[in-house]
Amino acid sequence: MQNTQLPPRIKVGVLGITGMVGQRFALLLQNHPRFELAAVGASPRSVGTRYADAVSWHMSEPIPPALADMVVQACEPVAFTGCPIIFSGLDAAVAGELEMAFVLAEFAVFSNAKNHRMHPLVPLVVPLVNAHHLRIIPFQRRAWGVQRGFLVTNANCSTTGLAVALQAMKCHVAPLARVLVTTMQAISGAGYPGVASLNILGNVVPHIGGEEGKIESELAKILGAVRVNAEPGFTNLPGMRVSASCNRVPVIDGHMGSVFVEFAEGDPSVDTCVDAVKRAFSTYIPPGLKTLSLLASPLLPAHAIVLREEVDRPQPRLDALTGSGMSVVVGRVRACPVFERGIKFTLLAHNTVLGAAGSSILNAEIAVAMEYCDALLK
Amino acid sequence: MQNTQLPPRIKVGVLGITGMVGQRFALLLQNHPRFELAAVGASPRSVGTRYADAVSWHMSEPIPPALADMVVQACEPVAFTGCPIIFSGLDAAVAGELEMAFVLAEFAVFSNAKNHRMHPLVPLVVPLVNAHHLRIIPFQRRAWGVQRGFLVTNANCSTTGLAVALQAMKCHVAPLARVLVTTMQAISGAGYPGVASLNILGNVVPHIGGEEGKIESELAKILGAVRVNAEPGFTNLPGMRVSASCNRVPVIDGHMGSVFVEFAEGDPSVDTCVDAVKRAFSTYIPPGLKTLSLLASPLLPAHAIVLREEVDRPQPRLDALTGSGMSVVVGRVRACPVFERGIKFTLLAHNTVLGAAGSSILNAEIAVAMEYCDALLK
Amino acid sequence: MQNTQLPPRIKVGVLGITGMVGQRFALLLQNHPRFELAAVGASPRSVGTRYADAVSWHMSEPIPPALADMVVQACEPVAFTGCPIIFSGLDAAVAGELEMAFVLAEFAVFSNAKNHRMHPLVPLVVPLVNAHHLRIIPFQRRAWGVQRGFLVTNANCSTTGLAVALQAMKCHVAPLARVLVTTMQAISGAGYPGVASLNILGNVVPHIGGEEGKIESELAKILGAVRVNAEPGFTNLPGMRVSASCNRVPVIDGHMGSVFVEFAEGDPSVDTCVDAVKRAFSTYIPPGLKTLSLLASPLLPAHAIVLREEVDRPQPRLDALTGSGMSVVVGRVRACPVFERGIKFTLLAHNTVLGAAGSSILNAEIAVAMEYCDALLK
Amino acid sequence: MQNTQLPPRIKVGVLGITGMVGQRFALLLQNHPRFELAAVGASPRSVGTRYADAVSWHMSEPIPPALADMVVQACEPVAFTGCPIIFSGLDAAVAGELEMAFVLAEFAVFSNAKNHRMHPLVPLVVPLVNAHHLRIIPFQRRAWGVQRGFLVTNANCSTTGLAVALQAMKCHVAPLARVLVTTMQAISGAGYPGVASLNILGNVVPHIGGEEGKIESELAKILGAVRVNAEPGFTNLPGMRVSASCNRVPVIDGHMGSVFVEFAEGDPSVDTCVDAVKRAFSTYIPPGLKTLSLLASPLLPAHAIVLREEVDRPQPRLDALTGSGMSVVVGRVRACPVFERGIKFTLLAHNTVLGAAGSSILNAEIAVAMEYCDALLK
Repeated sequence: MQNTQLPPRIKVGVLGITGMVGQRFALLLQNHPRFELAAVGASPRSVGTRYADAVSWHMSEPIPPALADMVVQACEPVAFTGCPIIFSGLDAAVAGELEMAFVLAEFAVFSNAKNHRMHPLVPLVVPLVNAHHLRIIPFQRRAWGVQRGFLVTNANCSTTGLAVALQAMKCHVAPLARVLVTTMQAISGAGYPGVASLNILGNVVPHIGGEEGKIESELAKILGAVRVNAEPGFTNLPGMRVSASCNRVPVIDGHMGSVFVEFAEGDPSVDTCVDAVKRAFSTYIPPGLKTLSLLASPLLPAHAIVLREEVDRPQPRLDALTGSGMSVVVGRVRACPVFERGIKFTLLAHNTVLGAAGSSILNAEIAVAMEYCDALLK
Repeated sequence: MQNTQLPPRIKVGVLGITGMVGQRFALLLQNHPRFELAAVGASPRSVGTRYADAVSWHMSEPIPPALADMVVQACEPVAFTGCPIIFSGLDAAVAGELEMAFVLAEFAVFSNAKNHRMHPLVPLVVPLVNAHHLRIIPFQRRAWGVQRGFLVTNANCSTTGLAVALQAMKCHVAPLARVLVTTMQAISGAGYPGVASLNILGNVVPHIGGEEGKIESELAKILGAVRVNAEPGFTNLPGMRVSASCNRVPVIDGHMGSVFVEFAEGDPSVDTCVDAVKRAFSTYIPPGLKTLSLLASPLLPAHAIVLREEVDRPQPRLDALTGSGMSVVVGRVRACPVFERGIKFTLLAHNTVLGAAGSSILNAEIAVAMEYCDALLK
Repeated sequence: MQNTQLPPRIKVGVLGITGMVGQRFALLLQNHPRFELAAVGASPRSVGTRYADAVSWHMSEPIPPALADMVVQACEPVAFTGCPIIFSGLDAAVAGELEMAFVLAEFAVFSNAKNHRMHPLVPLVVPLVNAHHLRIIPFQRRAWGVQRGFLVTNANCSTTGLAVALQAMKCHVAPLARVLVTTMQAISGAGYPGVASLNILGNVVPHIGGEEGKIESELAKILGAVRVNAEPGFTNLPGMRVSASCNRVPVIDGHMGSVFVEFAEGDPSVDTCVDAVKRAFSTYIPPGLKTLSLLASPLLPAHAIVLREEVDRPQPRLDALTGSGMSVVVGRVRACPVFERGIKFTLLAHNTVLGAAGSSILNAEIAVAMEYCDALLK
Repeated sequence: MQNTQLPPRIKVGVLGITGMVGQRFALLLQNHPRFELAAVGASPRSVGTRYADAVSWHMSEPIPPALADMVVQACEPVAFTGCPIIFSGLDAAVAGELEMAFVLAEFAVFSNAKNHRMHPLVPLVVPLVNAHHLRIIPFQRRAWGVQRGFLVTNANCSTTGLAVALQAMKCHVAPLARVLVTTMQAISGAGYPGVASLNILGNVVPHIGGEEGKIESELAKILGAVRVNAEPGFTNLPGMRVSASCNRVPVIDGHMGSVFVEFAEGDPSVDTCVDAVKRAFSTYIPPGLKTLSLLASPLLPAHAIVLREEVDRPQPRLDALTGSGMSVVVGRVRACPVFERGIKFTLLAHNTVLGAAGSSILNAEIAVAMEYCDALLK
C-alpha cells in the first residue's frame, strides 16, 4: 500500500436536513472521503431536537448512526461556524433569503432550491455537463461584496438527467433544434408528505406545478455559455427549443422521460443519426473533469451515461441506482419518423441522487478541486 | 308513454369470451337494447365448460347471471348458427384464420384483433371518427365472394382515443403536420395474465411490443379517405407524420397520452391555436352519426370528447369511466413552444371500453343502422 | 302499474360534505327515493363557496350535478333550517360539539364520528345488526332535554363488517368466546390527504391510530343489549373478548380482515362448526328489519352477508362493491387448528359505503320507518 | 494487519439459477468470502445459453459480471463436478428427484424447495434457530447409503422469520401454547412471472396455495428436537398449536405477519409478558452459533432479531433490508386482550434473503464450520 495521505475532511453543514433531499444528503455524506457532516439545520419546530426524534425518515437504509444523535440547529450562519461548505435542501418558500444570508456570511452554499437558479450571476451546474460555469464565481463575489462565500445551484430533478443526454448529443452529434419530453416522475420528487396516496395509487397525474417551465428554461442556461468578460453572466444555448409535458406516476424513485429530439442541420441520414447518438451516449465523458483529481469521489460514476440495448430498459425500479444513482440511463434509441434528422429515446435519472443531493455534493467537490474554496479552507 | 315498439333484439356471439376483452364484451352486452348475447366461444380447453367455471373473471362488476351458465363453444361457425353478428376478442395468434372463416360462412364479424386491420379492403373504424369507411363493405364482399358476411375491425386501444382527438382538430382547426405522443398505458391492455406484477409494481416499462408501429400506421388509415370507385380501398391521410413512444404504467384501466401536435399551415397565432383546439374538442360531433337512429344505444356517449379545464386532469382513476368509458377525455390544452403553430395536451381513453369492446359494439350498431346487416337479419 | 304513491322526500343536510365520507354521502343521496340533499356544510374556509370549487373530489363517479352548484354553509343549525335530518361526516376534532349543537336545536343527527359512540345513552348502530338499539332514543331525549332531536352513531369503518359477521355467528352458531382479527385497511379510510404516498406505495403500515381499541370496545356495545328500563343504557355482550391488529395496505376502497373465532361452548365438532358458520353467513337476515317497509331503499342490500366459496375471495378490488358496497363479503371459512371449537375466515366490507355513509343513511331510513322522526316530519 | 490467511474458497453450484431465488443466490454469493460460484444450472430451455441471455433479471442490483458470461448447465451431477456444495432454488415440480440425484452422487445439497422438508431424516434448518438439527446428517447418510453427500433444507419463506421470533420466546419467556398469524406476503415470494399484476395492483389476495399448512407443520419440526439415538429423527415441539391465514399484498420484498401468541403456563401478569418478550427479542442469540467461527460471514447479521419501538414499524419498504435482509424485525409488542398470558406483535422478514437463499447459504456455512463437509473438501 502506498504511503499516500488524504487531506483532512472538510466540515460541511446541511440545511433542510429533515426533508427528502436532506435525508438523501445525509446518506450520501455518510463515509464521504472529503466531507464530514458536522452541523444540520431545519425549520424552527425541529430546532433543539435530536435528529432521530425530529425526522420522519423515509429511506430504505437506516439513519446514519453519527447523525441520529446530532441536535438540529436553526438555519442561521452562527450555528454553522466551522463549516465552510453548506448544502441546502431547503424548501423554496424559505431558501431564497436563508441561502443568501449564508453567502453574505462567507459560506460556500450549494443549493437544490429553485430560487436563485436563473439569477444572472448564479451558476446552474449539472456537474457532468457544465462545471465550467463555476468560473462565474469571482464575478458573483464581486457583485455581492463577499470575499470567500459564493452560491452554486444545481438543476431541477427532471432537468438534470436530460441535460446530460442533450449535452452528449450536442457535443458529439449535431446542434439541437427541437426537444420534446414527456416525463413520468417519481413521488419522492414531491417531498414529504408530498403526493397523497389517494391521488397517485393506480393513477397518473398529468401535472406538476411549475415543472415544465423549469425544464424549458433551465436547459437553455445549462447548455449555454458562461461569459467571464466585461459583461459577466450566461448566454442561453441558441437555436434549441424545448417543450415538456410532466406527469407524476406511482414510482418511488427515478424520473423517466420519453424524449424526441430534432437535430438542427447536417447531412446524416436517420439511420446514421441513431448510430451517432448511441455512440455519443456510450462514450460521453464530461468536459473538463478529466483533469480534476476527483478520483476518490464516490459520487463520480464510472459512466456519466449508461446506454442499455435491451428493448424494455431503462426502468425505474431496476435501473435508478445505476452508478449508485449518479449515472443517467438511456435506452430505446431509435429514429423518430416525424423529423428528417431526429431520434427518440427513453431516459432515466435518480431524482434525489443525481437529480438533487448527489449533484450538489459533486458540485462542491468540483469547486474544491477547482480551488474556489481555497480561501474558505485556510 | 308512447306506443313505440323496439325491434326484436339481434342475437350475437362473442369469440374469445374468457379473455379481458371478452369479459368487457360480456358486461357491455348485458341489457343491451339491440343485441342479445346468445353464444360464446373460447379456446379448446374451455369448450364444453360452463362459463363461470371456465373464466378467470377480472371485472369489478360480477359475471352477468345469464352468461354464467352458458356453455362455452368452439370458435367455429357451426356453433354460432342463428347469431348473424359475431364479435371477436380473439388473440392475434388465432384471430386471422378464425375470423375469416366466420366471414366466409356469411357472418358479420366485428373484430378487435390486429390481424386484418391494415388489409386494403377491411375498414378500420373508430365509430366516432370514420363510420363512413363502412362503405367499403360491398366491395369487400365482392372481392371475397360472400353475399351477406363482412369484416369490420376497430383500432388498437391506444390508437382509438387519439384518433378522435386528431379528427376533431383536423376537421375544425387545421391540417395536421406532426403528431408526437407518449403513452402511459394500463395493465388491462395486456390481457390476462399479461403483465407480471414484479415487472410493473412501482415501476414503468418503456416498451409495449408492436404498439408504436400500430399507432403510427393505423392513424393514417383511420383519418384517411375511403375510395368506393373503380379502385376501391383506403387512402392514407396525406401530410401527417406520427411518432409514438409507448410505456406501461401501474394503472388498471385507462390509457393516457401526452400529445404534441404541429399544424400544417394557416395564420393563427399560437394563442389562437389553443382556443381553436379547445373549441374543436368541446363541440366535436362525429360526422354522419346525427342522421342515424342510434339514440337508444347505451354506447353512444353524450359527448365524444370531454374537455377538462382543471390543471391536473384527466386522470385514469377518476376519469376513465367518463361517458361510461366511451368518451375521450382531454385536458391541459396549451401552446407547444417548439412549434410555430402547435399545441400540447393530455388525452385519456378507457382501453377496454372505448379502446376495444365498446367501439366494436358501436360499430355493429352503426352497421345495422346503415343497413349493411339487412341481408343477415331477414 | 299500481297506483302507489311515495311519500314526499325528506330534506336532509350533510355536515363535512367536502371530506371523503361527505363525498360518499353525496353520491349515496343522489337519486335517493326518501331523502333529498338540501343543504351542505363544511369548515370555515369553504363556507360561501360553490361546492364544485370547494371540494377536492376523489370519487371515480362525477360530482352530482345538483350538488356542484350548491353553496357550502357553516356547520350551524341556523343554516340547516328545514332539514330535519342531518348526516355528519365531520372530523372528530370538531364533531363532538357541533353534532351536539344540532341535537339540542332539535335535529335528528346521524353521525360517523367517534366522539359520542361510547356515550351511555347514544346508540351505536350497525343497521344490519342492532337497529333495536334505537329504542334508547326516548331516554336520550329525556336526559338531554330535547323534544324531537336525537343522536345516532354508526360504527368505525373496520368494526362494521365484523359486527355483521359476528352477529350472524352469535345468533345462529354459538356464543362467541374469543375473536382475533388482523385488518388490512384501505387508504380511503384515512380521509384526504390522509396517507402520504411515500408511506404506503409498495408497503404495509402496521399501525392505525386508535383503531384497535375502537374495534375491541365498539363490538362489545353493538353486539350487546339495550336497556329500556329504569336504568336505560347498554350492556356489553358478556363473555366475548376481542383482539385486533390493524394494518394499512395500498388499496383504494375495502377493508379486509383475517378473522379467528373461538366459540364459547357446545358440542359440535370442528367440521360441524365450519358448516354451521357457512350456513349462518348464507342465511343471515338482520333481526327486525323484515317488518319495516324499507323495500324501496337502495341501501338495503339483497344479502347482508355474501358468502364466497372460491378459494381466493373476497378481494377488495373485485368484491368491495358487492351489494353496491352495502354487503359484507366473507370467504375462506375453515377450521382453526388452535381452538377446539373455532373457525377462521376472511372478511371484506366497503369502508366508506357500508363502513361509513351507507350505514348512516340506512340508520336514518330505519329510524324513519320506526317512527322516531315523526315529530320532526310534521 | 495480522498475517492471517483465509482458507481457499469452496466451489459451489446453484440449481435453478434463473428463478427469483436463484437470482438472489447469485447476488449473495457475489464476493462471498468462503464460497465461489463455479457452476449454474437451469431448465432445459436455458441450457447452453450465456446466463445474461437466459435470465429475466428482476433484482435492482445488476447481474454480477462474473456470472453474466457463465454458460447455464443442465441440472445433472456430471455438470457440477468440482463443486462439492450445491444450492437449490429449483421449483418443487422438479426439485424432488433432481436434488436426490445430487445427494446420491455425493454432493452436499442445501435446498429451498418444499419437497423433502418433512422427510423424517432431512433436517429443516432455520440457521438462527436450530442449526443443531444438522446432527442428523450421519444418520441420513447411513439410511441413504451415501458417504459424503447429504441434504439440508431450509424453511418456507413465511415460516423462517416466525420461527426465529418464536424460538426467542420459547427459550426466554415461556412455553408456547397457541400461535395465530396473519401474513401479508410480498409478490417476490411467488417467483416470476408469479402473480399477475391484474390480480394484485391495489388489491389483497387472501390465499397462497399450501402456505398455511407449511407454516403450521414446519414450525413444529423446526422448534422441536433432533433425536440422534437408536431411533434417529425429529420430534415435533409438544404443546404448541399454530393457525395461519395467508394473504398476498402489493409489496415487492418482505413478508409481514401480525402474530398473536398465548403462553402455556407461568405466573407473570400480562404486563410482565410484554416486557419479557421485548427482552427476549432484544437479547436473542442463536443457540450454538457462538462457538462457530462464522465471524467472516456476510450473512450472519449483527442481530438475529431487531426490536423496533416506534409505533408504526416494521414496514417492508423501510425495514426488509435490516441486517442486509438477514435480521428478523419485530415491533408493536403489546398485550393481547383475549389471552391471560399472551401478546401480539408485528413481524417482518425478507422473503428471498432470510426466507430463502440467505438461510440456505448460512446453513452451508454452519455445516462447513461443524465439519460435516470435511469429507467433501479433501
